[in-house]
Amino acid sequence: MQQAWEGFVPGSWQHEIDVRDFIQRNYTPYDGDESFLSDPTPATVALWYKVLELFDQERENGGVIDMDTKVVSTITSHAAGYIDRDLEKIVGLQTDKPLKRALMVDGGIRMAVAACKSHGYEVDPPIVDFYTNRRKTHNAGVFDVYTPEMRACRHSHIITGLPDAYGRGRIIGDYRRVALYGVDRLIEQKEAEKDGTQKHMTELVIRHREELAEQARALRELKRLGEIYGLDIGRPAATFQEAVQWLYLGYLAAVKEQNGAAMSIGRNSTFLDIYAERDLARGILDERGAQEIIDHLVMKLRMIKFARTPEYNELFSGDPQWVTESIGGMGVDGRSMVTKTSFRYLHTLETMGTSPEPNLTVLWSKRLPEAFKQYCARISIYSSSIQYENDDLMRVYHGDDYAIACCVSSMRIGKEMQFFGARANLAKCLLYALNGGRDEKTGEQIGPRHQPVTGAVLDYDDVMQKYEDMMMWLAGVYVNALNIIHYMHDKYCYERLQMALHDEHVKRWFATGIAGLSVVADSLSAIKYAKVKVVRDETGLITDFIVDGDFPKYGNDDDRVDQIAHYVVERFMKYVRETDTYRNAVPTTSILTITSNVVYGRATGATPDGRRGGEPFAPGANPMHQRDTHGAVASLASVAKLPFRDAQDGISNTFSIVPDALGKDVEIYFENEVPCAACAPNEPAYNEDFGA
Amino acid sequence: MQQAWEGFVPGSWQHEIDVRDFIQRNYTPYDGDESFLSDPTPATVALWYKVLELFDQERENGGVIDMDTKVVSTITSHAAGYIDRDLEKIVGLQTDKPLKRALMVDGGIRMAVAACKSHGYEVDPPIVDFYTNRRKTHNAGVFDVYTPEMRACRHSHIITGLPDAYGRGRIIGDYRRVALYGVDRLIEQKEAEKDGTQKHMTELVIRHREELAEQARALRELKRLGEIYGLDIGRPAATFQEAVQWLYLGYLAAVKEQNGAAMSIGRNSTFLDIYAERDLARGILDERGAQEIIDHLVMKLRMIKFARTPEYNELFSGDPQWVTESIGGMGVDGRSMVTKTSFRYLHTLETMGTSPEPNLTVLWSKRLPEAFKQYCARISIYSSSIQYENDDLMRVYHGDDYAIACCVSSMRIGKEMQFFGARANLAKCLLYALNGGRDEKTGEQIGPRHQPVTGAVLDYDDVMQKYEDMMMWLAGVYVNALNIIHYMHDKYCYERLQMALHDEHVKRWFATGIAGLSVVADSLSAIKYAKVKVVRDETGLITDFIVDGDFPKYGNDDDRVDQIAHYVVERFMKYVRETDTYRNAVPTTSILTITSNVVYGRATGATPDGRRGGEPFAPGANPMHQRDTHGAVASLASVAKLPFRDAQDGISNTFSIVPDALGKDVEIYFENEVPCAACAPNEPAYNEDFGA
Repeated sequence: MQQAWEGFVPGSWQHEIDVRDFIQRNYTPYDGDESFLSDPTPATVALWYKVLELFDQERENGGVIDMDTKVVSTITSHAAGYIDRDLEKIVGLQTDKPLKRALMVDGGIRMAVAACKSHGYEVDPPIVDFYTNRRKTHNAGVFDVYTPEMRACRHSHIITGLPDAYGRGRIIGDYRRVALYGVDRLIEQKEAEKDGTQKHMTELVIRHREELAEQARALRELKRLGEIYGLDIGRPAATFQEAVQWLYLGYLAAVKEQNGAAMSIGRNSTFLDIYAERDLARGILDERGAQEIIDHLVMKLRMIKFARTPEYNELFSGDPQWVTESIGGMGVDGRSMVTKTSFRYLHTLETMGTSPEPNLTVLWSKRLPEAFKQYCARISIYSSSIQYENDDLMRVYHGDDYAIACCVSSMRIGKEMQFFGARANLAKCLLYALNGGRDEKTGEQIGPRHQPVTGAVLDYDDVMQKYEDMMMWLAGVYVNALNIIHYMHDKYCYERLQMALHDEHVKRWFATGIAGLSVVADSLSAIKYAKVKVVRDETGLITDFIVDGDFPKYGNDDDRVDQIAHYVVERFMKYVRETDTYRNAVPTTSILTITSNVVYGRATGATPDGRRGGEPFAPGANPMHQRDTHGAVASLASVAKLPFRDAQDGISNTFSIVPDALGKDVEIYFENEVPCAACAPNEPAYNEDFGA
Repeated sequence: MQQAWEGFVPGSWQHEIDVRDFIQRNYTPYDGDESFLSDPTPATVALWYKVLELFDQERENGGVIDMDTKVVSTITSHAAGYIDRDLEKIVGLQTDKPLKRALMVDGGIRMAVAACKSHGYEVDPPIVDFYTNRRKTHNAGVFDVYTPEMRACRHSHIITGLPDAYGRGRIIGDYRRVALYGVDRLIEQKEAEKDGTQKHMTELVIRHREELAEQARALRELKRLGEIYGLDIGRPAATFQEAVQWLYLGYLAAVKEQNGAAMSIGRNSTFLDIYAERDLARGILDERGAQEIIDHLVMKLRMIKFARTPEYNELFSGDPQWVTESIGGMGVDGRSMVTKTSFRYLHTLETMGTSPEPNLTVLWSKRLPEAFKQYCARISIYSSSIQYENDDLMRVYHGDDYAIACCVSSMRIGKEMQFFGARANLAKCLLYALNGGRDEKTGEQIGPRHQPVTGAVLDYDDVMQKYEDMMMWLAGVYVNALNIIHYMHDKYCYERLQMALHDEHVKRWFATGIAGLSVVADSLSAIKYAKVKVVRDETGLITDFIVDGDFPKYGNDDDRVDQIAHYVVERFMKYVRETDTYRNAVPTTSILTITSNVVYGRATGATPDGRRGGEPFAPGANPMHQRDTHGAVASLASVAKLPFRDAQDGISNTFSIVPDALGKDVEIYFENEVPCAACAPNEPAYNEDFGA
């Protein structure tokens, strides 16, 4: 340790696992501009050219170059793989060949088989047999326990996108620990945690101890992964290159054993910068070298791929992994956390051109250094590839060592994790309330047999009463389904390595989500302020509405309807909170479906706001298209009234502006319409087909 | 159903799964003698001759003829196997070849590998890899969670024989349900149970529902097992032969997926007799035929074998399976439950000669029919192969549809199961109390660092205080270790098929056990009534004792010491009860090590009763050898004072008598010294070697 840590400011981070303490004591904020940055090296250019060729081959091949069908991926399942060994500063591939898709089955063998089949590959039959009959998967466990009601709700799409057929993702290992402490120290720590004094072997204690044992085992495998690449990552990293390499191997181990819908990497630039600064000061690194190492890391992250089905890729207009890297933000002590390496990360969009992965996410604060803000803006305009998140908001809840998983889910690194939970369709829930639990498209009884609306015209108080009852039911089914999912994921597809890079006792977020909020708000507003007549079919099912008169619409800073939206979020969250969660995880909600608003809309009949059956919802918390007629500020004001307290997993607002709107000096163009793998429903691809 | 049940007295058994109701309404008690019994048929003789030849081959081969090394056993893993297809009335083998040992790994891959290796076989390396790295076993799970203290207690042998390296056994499926209802009806029942109204998905509910799903799956595999043998066991059995066959296939499925230390079969003779009586009345069966079917069933049960290590077999002087079949007993309505088929079962010891398996166990009551008692006595004298248990005692607790698992553990069939728990060494615990938790043989600190005895002479009150503290500690470690074991067994080696033949909600017994009781009683008596000086080694460890004067000894109907024994059992059980048990199982204790008293003694240093270090304990609850000097009745009276309430899993007393002692008319010779697989410690074979 002594040698590896030489020159670092000492602190409690030396005596306990505390990466934040190390960062705070050692990092060098950088307020300057990007003029120090260096061009890509010839090695970077040569390697990146090879990778681009491989990407081309993938496309020509219809999506993949090669797929594993005989070796189930583990941390140590493959020999070392390289793009070009002599040129690579940062090594490590998911399999033994660039872009060869690994075979990952613990989430669900059916999906693995389907992914291979769709590309013309066949999983080795003994493997299929083994993971069907001898070693249960997450998917099989979940479907063993689902109630008929839960299956019906999935089928009717009132609950969608549940992570019940594949890895849940959304957990961020603290990969920095690998670099700072070395794997040996981390193993020691896990073993010490296990050899604690717990003597009362309740089921919870037994599970906890088994998880610690699995975590230690995963760390031993991680060390072996280093050996496969000829690296001793048992010891702490001693240089910038080693720090980047160690950290990347930690992440690589995670994606070798988990193919979750979002495999985010954390918040690393400020941490790594400490090593860069030390090496620069020692004269063993120059700017070209520093950029090259970051370029090679980012190149590797751009190559992270999983075996998915074409339906999955279609839904997300690509093959997203959500390798989210959080950059910048402010410290709680008021210092900016932007470093030169923060610039180096963004600079990869120039050295190697634009790319959706890794998902470079700037934690935006009003108080970020001006030069960095301007550089962000320039790179955004150039690449359309930066995601921005509100650090000023999240810092209040999570401090200054959190990161974003997927697109908006924030969590303290190594201290908090999330049980991902997809989405409940609140617009459809409103229709169920009107129809006494019957589905408005099929007429099937899906929800409880409550009293349907009986009159010809909708009465606001009557509807609200019925809607609250139906939301209460939906929240119950939804949370209970998620309880099953996360129980089974822990049982059959536990994130051993990722959780090994967490503290012993973590806080668990229970992330629910809602879709169709603006449709609900406008529908209830129409019922309250206009006159909504119902149209029934021959079975008495309400299938359409006739709206008479005008009504306030969400997105115009009109409290009459904005307060309805607020109320709905608050009520639904109340019902979610009233349902016990697995491992006492703390419920949150997000309002964020960015692309899947289209499929949610497709699954939902006509609504009282005048929206026709099958028409898309607005994305996330957006007002319905063209209904926000009072200008941008009024539209944003409506969204801003939603209670973040009740939607702490994130509220998304998709907002496109022309550069001129922001002034003449700097051209800024925010594009935030990258599709979100983990938030979108995957019904067509996995749900019905992969049921047990 | 209508056809299969024709002629049976109807009742609630037709509308719900209730085998007891069926038996009570339909069985025909038989008070006559054995004169109706028939000789073995030529087919029986020919088949049995072949089996004997196979047994000879096994012996010549050093224990096994053949072992599976490539196919892991499941209910449906093998094609049909026969001894001689044309002659067999009851078909079904554990593998595709008689006596070929199945490969069973869920309990622990290490033991499976060791069993094969010891016979010169090698388990297929991919299988070892899968069950080491991809599919965890019970053994691996347990060792992941054990505390250092638990490992130390196993190592020092103060707790021994824990079922942590192999299947726990001791669960009896209600195999009669297969015959009476057919598998289709049983699957329907399990699915109905699962489709209940539980909506609140706590972890306990999730586990329960997954278990029901696994049970239904196992039943579907059982049906498929029937098909492999060309039999449709989806429907109820329609004849005596079918009833026996259906029932046997249920049992066969259980031993195809579990190799627990005791795989008992239940209480079947009275049930099956109903089918025999109906067929005899219909004229489609004669006595020869009835006996032939029972002979062929029993022949199959004699062939049940598992792959064990030689150390295991050595310990048990054989290769015991504990296929315990409980026969006779009285009904709670006062009628005897002895039927002609009860006689037919015992008669197999004549038609095919004596055999330790199946373990024919007569549930003895004073009120059994005289002719049956006499027949039992005669067969006992002839075969030395009948085990007797006190029905008058157990009926009070369990009613009249219980059976014995292993040698003494009683449970209501299909309604209760047992978590088997091996034994704590109370004599060694006394030495730990004297030595402040240090082991008397190694000096290591195993127990808590309590104050050791400091004087030269032992003081009774001081010792008792220390002993109670140490018992309290031991009970805690012991019960918590068992909690881990049974959690992991449920997780990695769940008895799907056996539990499928139980009610949805079962009562679970938590079976602990104690060894060395008479040593403890006599030691405490010596301390109280004589003068015991301690001998210490150079480290202050008490390693021997000098007893001055005489003292009352357990086994002489002397209350002064018998009450000490009573008190020790009562106290230890109190401490066991004070520790929470997995699944809220109800704690019991047994006092019954029948052969392993030798190894328990070997692991225990000198004791204050004058017993030398390493000397065997007395078996079970027996007085120490030659100390019961006041005759048989006094010896029995001491044992009888032990509180059955606190040792409900059984108290064994090994008692050999010469025939003359019982009078001249009938020669009776009880031999009850069959070794008990599940009660004996298996340390040398599995414990240290198979730790993770």
